[in-house]
Amino acid sequence: MTETPQYTPLIRSLPASVPFVGPETQERSRGAPFTARLGANESLFGPSPRAIAAMEAAARSVWMYGDPEVHELRAALAAHHGVSPDHIVVGEGIDGLLGYLVRLMIIPGDVVVTSDGAYPTFNFHVTGHGGVLHKVPYRGDHEDPEALLATAAGVRPKLLYIANPDNPMGSHHPGATIAAMLDRLPQGTLLVLDEAYVDLAPPGTAADIAADDPRVIRLRTFSKGYGLAGLRVGYAIAAPGLISAFNKVRNHFGVGRIAQAGALAALQDQAWLDQVRAEVTTARTHLAAIAVANGLRPLPSATNFVTMDCGRDGDFARAVLRELVARGIFVRMPFVAPHDRCIRVSCGDAAALGAFATALPLALAAARG
Amino acid sequence: MTETPQYTPLIRSLPASVPFVGPETQERSRGAPFTARLGANESLFGPSPRAIAAMEAAARSVWMYGDPEVHELRAALAAHHGVSPDHIVVGEGIDGLLGYLVRLMIIPGDVVVTSDGAYPTFNFHVTGHGGVLHKVPYRGDHEDPEALLATAAGVRPKLLYIANPDNPMGSHHPGATIAAMLDRLPQGTLLVLDEAYVDLAPPGTAADIAADDPRVIRLRTFSKGYGLAGLRVGYAIAAPGLISAFNKVRNHFGVGRIAQAGALAALQDQAWLDQVRAEVTTARTHLAAIAVANGLRPLPSATNFVTMDCGRDGDFARAVLRELVARGIFVRMPFVAPHDRCIRVSCGDAAALGAFATALPLALAAARG
Repeated sequence: MTETPQYTPLIRSLPASVPFVGPETQERSRGAPFTARLGANESLFGPSPRAIAAMEAAARSVWMYGDPEVHELRAALAAHHGVSPDHIVVGEGIDGLLGYLVRLMIIPGDVVVTSDGAYPTFNFHVTGHGGVLHKVPYRGDHEDPEALLATAAGVRPKLLYIANPDNPMGSHHPGATIAAMLDRLPQGTLLVLDEAYVDLAPPGTAADIAADDPRVIRLRTFSKGYGLAGLRVGYAIAAPGLISAFNKVRNHFGVGRIAQAGALAALQDQAWLDQVRAEVTTARTHLAAIAVANGLRPLPSATNFVTMDCGRDGDFARAVLRELVARGIFVRMPFVAPHDRCIRVSCGDAAALGAFATALPLALAAARG
Repeated sequence: MTETPQYTPLIRSLPASVPFVGPETQERSRGAPFTARLGANESLFGPSPRAIAAMEAAARSVWMYGDPEVHELRAALAAHHGVSPDHIVVGEGIDGLLGYLVRLMIIPGDVVVTSDGAYPTFNFHVTGHGGVLHKVPYRGDHEDPEALLATAAGVRPKLLYIANPDNPMGSHHPGATIAAMLDRLPQGTLLVLDEAYVDLAPPGTAADIAADDPRVIRLRTFSKGYGLAGLRVGYAIAAPGLISAFNKVRNHFGVGRIAQAGALAALQDQAWLDQVRAEVTTARTHLAAIAVANGLRPLPSATNFVTMDCGRDGDFARAVLRELVARGIFVRMPFVAPHDRCIRVSCGDAAALGAFATALPLALAAARG
């Protein structure tokens, strides 16, 4: 007897897992809101007031569908990056774009290379299309371009993913190191360069790559530096052939009217982004000091979070995390060893960091038993 | 030599087509904005002021990701429909949900049944996953449940799509007719019931189907009656097994914070929806009168648009459409014969309908040469 509905064999094989549990789920389960929301690398400094005004105005015209070509925002992004609009596709966050990209390339059995412990949502999409992930260990706290290239030379993947700066460790490579990977990719491998955090990284971290280079796609977002995580706007920069391929699969009206308006206004307020960079720098210093004061080792960060080495094993760091959460502090931590010796704390304002500073010694004491 | 990037064979075979050209694209190409935006069945009556206020408030907290479980909105929808939250998935419009649904079910060669001339975006998704579409002719201006079932009995599709009310003809069947289809579906066929316009249809149009019935998924939207097209929020009601399967593939953070807040507030203002229903009824009468005054035949409508039979062939209706667009009136028309003898005009306020009433006789005269 035929079951209804008839899922594909691949879908049947997938677990009904989710890449991340949201803080709201945790709040519901603990029965109280978090005091400090420092777990999702959101920008507590918020978006530009001009972006807020643009979203408010757009709320009154949201009875209209958004422009499916995202013309104005793509034109502004093109000008910002010195490329043409044909080099840019806008999507429902980097998550949405990664999903489309994987669908364009991967069928069951196709090979993909990434780092062990890197972005789980990318893995979710690859597995969701039946791709086979080869995970390369980090070198210390850095993703390892040499090892990624060596593995790629062996397995000849369709996609090689690297995030620069990295999440969850906060490390980075100079953009020149990333750009130099291109000439050493196997024939046919596309470099998927996730630059979600690059707006907050030291100068020179963004890879200087010709927009027409068919060997790479770069991913950017309004969720981090621009402070618009809940708006869901990301974009990719790549050669026009690859960009136009997204039109074969994307949800053409998926980036709505408020999203387009808010992102455009945010882009046009670079002074706000400069201010956020300054606040993030201050907060990183503050977080590092809190870590040191509590005997933890803060890792250098090129992002809007600081990863802190708790100095023992994963079980200990998980206990620290649990005790922080129990005290109303939302933080997350790396998923895999040996990085799971760390917790990962987002930059925040003085109030949030103060709450973290108060809770951390108590959480550490409780975790130490 | 291996091309970079390496698209899948299916992707290679797809045209880079888009289901709809947006009015903004047409405005750019004609170098002037439209006077009346009556082509996309948006709600010119707008969303509830409470929804606008909720979106404005959410704009100030949009630095936070939206709840990936969409808990509050799902709970409210469940209460509204008398089901449990486990029966509901919220997604990036019905378009987004149709994309996920097709991905759950369809691999290359799988069979899908729909009506010839029905929603192109559904076809876009089916073709995009390699599905084979069997298109059943309408019976007059109605989708034809008997013919759909007869074709399904022959080809045993994984999915059978029907929209009730229908777009682009505006016709509808009683909900009981749709519900009666279930017992006649082939074993293994899932009925995809698109009820995008049902909020604006006569009482009894919504199918009364047990939420646990595994043979059907119902799709609803905030884009039409609720006036939130540019927010991108749709939802599906189905048995919990199918609902949870969406978690295997969906963009978990794809429905953002403003979207969730706006949809929730809109749902909670049913008095506004009642008022929109009254305005839509008035506008339908007004549009029908304009049609009759110009020698066109307005079709009965259970939606927020009126489809008008121009009385000649598709070339003539296309000429009428072109002449309307040239006069600043954005309207669309059915894609396939014999429905392409018609133009399709959305309900609007007095100003928009006045502009249409002024332009229509001129456009008809120009089209008649």
